[in-house]
Amino acid sequence: MEKILVFGHKSPDTDTIASSIAMAYLQTKLGNTAVPKRLGNISKETEYALNHFKIGAPELISSVSEDDTVILVDHNEPAQSADGIADAHVYMVVDHHRINGFTTPEPVYYYAEPVGCTCTIIYKLFNDNNVVIPADVAGLMLSAIISDTLLFKSPTCTDKDRKVAEDLAKIAGVDINTYGLAMLKAGTDLTSFSAEELVSLDGKQVTLADTVKAKISQVNTADIDDVMTRKEKIEAAMQKDIDSLGLDLDVFLITDIINSNSQVIVLGSRADIVEKAYSVKLENNTAFLPGIVSRKKQVIPVLTSNV
Amino acid sequence: MEKILVFGHKSPDTDTIASSIAMAYLQTKLGNTAVPKRLGNISKETEYALNHFKIGAPELISSVSEDDTVILVDHNEPAQSADGIADAHVYMVVDHHRINGFTTPEPVYYYAEPVGCTCTIIYKLFNDNNVVIPADVAGLMLSAIISDTLLFKSPTCTDKDRKVAEDLAKIAGVDINTYGLAMLKAGTDLTSFSAEELVSLDGKQVTLADTVKAKISQVNTADIDDVMTRKEKIEAAMQKDIDSLGLDLDVFLITDIINSNSQVIVLGSRADIVEKAYSVKLENNTAFLPGIVSRKKQVIPVLTSNV
Repeated sequence: MEKILVFGHKSPDTDTIASSIAMAYLQTKLGNTAVPKRLGNISKETEYALNHFKIGAPELISSVSEDDTVILVDHNEPAQSADGIADAHVYMVVDHHRINGFTTPEPVYYYAEPVGCTCTIIYKLFNDNNVVIPADVAGLMLSAIISDTLLFKSPTCTDKDRKVAEDLAKIAGVDINTYGLAMLKAGTDLTSFSAEELVSLDGKQVTLADTVKAKISQVNTADIDDVMTRKEKIEAAMQKDIDSLGLDLDVFLITDIINSNSQVIVLGSRADIVEKAYSVKLENNTAFLPGIVSRKKQVIPVLTSNV
Repeated sequence: MEKILVFGHKSPDTDTIASSIAMAYLQTKLGNTAVPKRLGNISKETEYALNHFKIGAPELISSVSEDDTVILVDHNEPAQSADGIADAHVYMVVDHHRINGFTTPEPVYYYAEPVGCTCTIIYKLFNDNNVVIPADVAGLMLSAIISDTLLFKSPTCTDKDRKVAEDLAKIAGVDINTYGLAMLKAGTDLTSFSAEELVSLDGKQVTLADTVKAKISQVNTADIDDVMTRKEKIEAAMQKDIDSLGLDLDVFLITDIINSNSQVIVLGSRADIVEKAYSVKLENNTAFLPGIVSRKKQVIPVLTSNV
């Protein structure tokens, strides 16, 4: 088989990068030629993890073509994938998100589980295929689980994620809490980002209930107030997105990963969906959402059912 | 968890029925309450297999509601599923078809492999969960693999299907070839079916390339000429479907399972797609397609790319 390109979603987070690297490694051990790629800039959190375990970042690509064979990890929706994905040959998908808009002309290997992190699933694939996970790759996979579950505090976290993380920590030789808090804190240093960068760092475009074009962005922080001092600039950046992308709804979640709450800034003609979904009144376009930390489990489905 | 309904596609074939029964059994052993269901009449082939291994047919249902939790086997496309499927809670999908139009509001367990038969995948799930397959269930799962791969002769058949079938035959205590030929032959007895029944026995509605509304039906036979003596009545039944379903293309495959060829009858305003796809000229709405036996691998993708 020709070379397989392995990549996760646009605006890559730690799970997307770790999954790409781990899956490319696994495929290579299974006799395929596979290389990890990425569709955007590395976050500070991911950079911390890559540096800690001395692994290089995947090469940046923006598009694929009909000549490419690809493995999608940590995503399936075409809008979140590489440009030209509809023309590429999808060899495999391993994901933990809902399936939406994914289609192939022929049957394909597709494995999704409702767990907190793609790397939890990839760990199972290593075991199923009797491939040993090297310490550095294990460390990176552990970083992904810590990142996606906010150190097991997110409601998306399952027992499987916890058990796999414990096993990976042993292989990697790190203490989960010490390493995890250091990594998460490295990821919350938002000072060097402009408002435009904040709204695109981890921004996902979704169409809610087939009708509402939305963008839902999220940043993690240890200090919501600190981010809110830049509210006006963030709103201006969001308005730019609304105009250029034709959005009906733009949601910016500022998530306090220490206390597990979010402050939300909402713009767009359908801002009412957020008010209805969480029974809150937006004041100056913002509201506090206690206990809300998971975009995938606590935001997208809740907004979808309140369109 | 509440009771889980397990079912395959409309116009159930042996794999759909066997997968429903095997998966419901597996779920029960895993501590869930699960019952197999079916969305249509049992074929003669399936009846032969159920009788041989002394297993009762699943109960017939036609629709599900928002109160139902379901496992889909051997299909994912809403058009092939129970009425009301969009409202039900999908707990799991295990399939070997392309993904098309499947979507859920939340992440879901989804496992698909490009193998010849869903029961080949379910066999792996039994092993993964260390659940022993009883002899009768193993016999039914073997029947599904024989049926979907036409005794390993279909191009959809993989090494995995062969290996799993051999293991299941040992558990069930049958000789694959002797049992398989008898079962396939039982399934090709089409004499008792009206032309209307022939076109709906195993008829799948698909939308090709998002634009062409098509129905692709298939019957297996040991004697193409015998079926073709009823060509005019079959065409009348197909025309009824075109009118009532608003089809652009209606394809009826008569597949010779002994020699691995098909005769095709084609009606509809887009019959040209079949001519283009196989470089044949339809004469009196029919053509011979040497080597074509698999709707999934040799028909749907080929038609799709020739719309």
